[in-house]
Amino acid sequence: MINDEQLASLNKAIVEDDTLALEYLVLDIKPVDLAGFIRYQTTQAGLKLLTYLPLEERADVFGHLNVVTQCELAEKMTEEGLSQLFVHMNSDERADLFNELAEEKRQSILRRLAKEEREDIRRLASFEEGTTGSIMSSDYVTVVAETNGVKTNIAQALERVRHTAPNAETIYQVYILNADQQLAGVLSLRQLILAKPEATVDQIMTTELVSINAAEPQEEASRLISRYDLLALPVIDDNQRLIGIVTYDDAMDVAEAEATEDMHKGASIGPSDEGFGQATIRNLYSRRVNWLVLLVFANILSGAGIAFYEEMIEAYVVLVFFLPLLVASGGNAGSQASTLMIRGLATGDVGIKDWGKLLVRELIVASFLGLTMALAIVGIGFWRGGIEIAQVVAYSMFIIVIVGSLIGLSLPFVLVKLGWDPATASGPLVTSIADIIGVLIYFAIATSILAF
Amino acid sequence: MINDEQLASLNKAIVEDDTLALEYLVLDIKPVDLAGFIRYQTTQAGLKLLTYLPLEERADVFGHLNVVTQCELAEKMTEEGLSQLFVHMNSDERADLFNELAEEKRQSILRRLAKEEREDIRRLASFEEGTTGSIMSSDYVTVVAETNGVKTNIAQALERVRHTAPNAETIYQVYILNADQQLAGVLSLRQLILAKPEATVDQIMTTELVSINAAEPQEEASRLISRYDLLALPVIDDNQRLIGIVTYDDAMDVAEAEATEDMHKGASIGPSDEGFGQATIRNLYSRRVNWLVLLVFANILSGAGIAFYEEMIEAYVVLVFFLPLLVASGGNAGSQASTLMIRGLATGDVGIKDWGKLLVRELIVASFLGLTMALAIVGIGFWRGGIEIAQVVAYSMFIIVIVGSLIGLSLPFVLVKLGWDPATASGPLVTSIADIIGVLIYFAIATSILAF
Repeated sequence: MINDEQLASLNKAIVEDDTLALEYLVLDIKPVDLAGFIRYQTTQAGLKLLTYLPLEERADVFGHLNVVTQCELAEKMTEEGLSQLFVHMNSDERADLFNELAEEKRQSILRRLAKEEREDIRRLASFEEGTTGSIMSSDYVTVVAETNGVKTNIAQALERVRHTAPNAETIYQVYILNADQQLAGVLSLRQLILAKPEATVDQIMTTELVSINAAEPQEEASRLISRYDLLALPVIDDNQRLIGIVTYDDAMDVAEAEATEDMHKGASIGPSDEGFGQATIRNLYSRRVNWLVLLVFANILSGAGIAFYEEMIEAYVVLVFFLPLLVASGGNAGSQASTLMIRGLATGDVGIKDWGKLLVRELIVASFLGLTMALAIVGIGFWRGGIEIAQVVAYSMFIIVIVGSLIGLSLPFVLVKLGWDPATASGPLVTSIADIIGVLIYFAIATSILAF
Repeated sequence: MINDEQLASLNKAIVEDDTLALEYLVLDIKPVDLAGFIRYQTTQAGLKLLTYLPLEERADVFGHLNVVTQCELAEKMTEEGLSQLFVHMNSDERADLFNELAEEKRQSILRRLAKEEREDIRRLASFEEGTTGSIMSSDYVTVVAETNGVKTNIAQALERVRHTAPNAETIYQVYILNADQQLAGVLSLRQLILAKPEATVDQIMTTELVSINAAEPQEEASRLISRYDLLALPVIDDNQRLIGIVTYDDAMDVAEAEATEDMHKGASIGPSDEGFGQATIRNLYSRRVNWLVLLVFANILSGAGIAFYEEMIEAYVVLVFFLPLLVASGGNAGSQASTLMIRGLATGDVGIKDWGKLLVRELIVASFLGLTMALAIVGIGFWRGGIEIAQVVAYSMFIIVIVGSLIGLSLPFVLVKLGWDPATASGPLVTSIADIIGVLIYFAIATSILAF
């Protein structure tokens, strides 16, 4: 992180337009930290800072900015400057940026690039957002297993690694290709430097390898990297040809973004590329309003349920005292169950096939929870309304907690079966459904016990 | 993952006690997948499978099991077998297991190990759970910058890497120590294989490095690794001496566990080491019951608020129709705000110092949200209760949504100031608080407009 002293010096140098001080300062700051600083600067100041960096580092810092800031800066750059940046950026990052630029800008950049780069950008930019293809990089090291019938040996492979190293995102995994460019195996640099130089590559390469198709969702790539502790995951096309890699650091970013998205969904908030700190008012409004309004209409059903029992409420107005507490308890227990379920599904800890088993367990857990909460509340029921109200409240609590929990556990499953994201079973949605059912259960039990 | 065919063959081989088939089958299955399979077996079957594995792989598979299953298996192993496993396990995993074993078992294992291993286990096991020290590994490669005044060169460093490789978790980062065992720099294997063999280590090593004190929380280690895209993070003691490393794969596990814990907290569920799939009824009950009961008592306040306005409800029973809808909306908007805030703080996207700025933005966003929702509901208010009720409902909605949102945004900050985890500001808690305040706002506005 940038310390306070560095921050003060940076700000001073920018205000005073002190070129020398800036050039000196940026030497000591890591690219990602410099990017963090630039995010909070005006486009003007950001551009100025970037120009003081050597091209390699400039591309590195630029790559750490989010796409919104990148676009703002790109707008103000010369086409020559932007093209240079494109040449030095990581292949996956520049493809993302490319997708966000205006058509005119894209064409002018492509025109300035060499054929190879141009094709690389076009190819990577063609994958749909959210797929593994959209986050893969084309900067990796490959070695062909044999050339014209002669098998490649370790010394030759190492030579090739040394040669490719400056342009590769990772050289710690070397992918071995057969004559059809298909992925035949992998060698770690560890294996390479420990093997005898004259051994052939196909003798020591690992052939049991984990790979992924470019069309698979990026979460799946992230999950595989995490599960198998991979440094990089090779990405293949439908013909088993190696077309890219996803590195562990991109997998970490995907996992973080997915967790954020799931947490937001859990509170009925739509997804966004903008971080919360920088999000605009329009962005926040539009991500929140839809569900809020939808839930209002769901809650009208609760109100309608209450209105249906209007006469009973007039006769026993004490029932209203317990209404918020009972329906909230069903919603809370339901949110707990749905959250456990959604996260369990997301981490692969439970699967769709486990529903029956989990439902039985949930029934038992919820029964104990309902019993505990009924006991917690029965005395207050007696105090406020006598023995009959105490009974109504205790029985209602017991049943509402069980029903709420079972709904919470089941909703994510139902959504998956419908082809939706289970995380849509947000706390507010589960709570609203549990509220409606809670109202009905409460007044039904009251009707039967109070013989109204 | 294990495919269905492999699964069927594994089960068949276990039932039939078919040693040969088992030995052959496990060759093709990755350690983590085999561990996943063993988790769902009886201890007996798990032990049988493990014995068919060569010691190295057995330790690898065993290391991928969770600590609960490890302990169950360890109970049934001979002391000799368990000690052998300890020798071959990763240093961080064995220290975790060691901490869970009975004192008697610990002593018997320590007695069977060499002095160096014994001290390593004691040292790693001594760090408190949740600290960086508790997840660090001691299997890394170090090179001293100079010996007796002679500087180490690249060829010597590479020789040392080759020599240490079989026991190191990663050889891709080589840590350079000064004479006091302090961390002086780092060399990546990439730098090593590209450098001239006769160059000295201190000429090319990176001295600007990111490190962490062993006492820092493990989330901080995970965050640094993610932020700076590190393969491994060196861990130092108070005297800057290198005492361990945290690898990127452990950082991914920490990040996933932290996200799970935060999501669970967001639904008022306590933390646990057990996954949801395997959790016992007792575990689930105890993690859920405390907050549920606490929230019941919070909701009694809502009930009390309603009871306070009993006479008004008897006069205008239509007010009850809108009660669930209004208080739920405040709770929903509040949950959204608290979730955005909590996740923003967790990912470092916003900081405590940003509160004022964020509060102003939230006020504007919530005003628009409140206005939208008031408009959505005003017609129904008119239909159910005429112009005055429509006014009461619309004004209440507007104010309740704003107040709920501001509470949701602020609660995580207040908790941080009190030294608590901001994630404690769960959806159910925010909803309960918003409910109480919603009831009061609603009836206060009703009192004033209806001139009751």
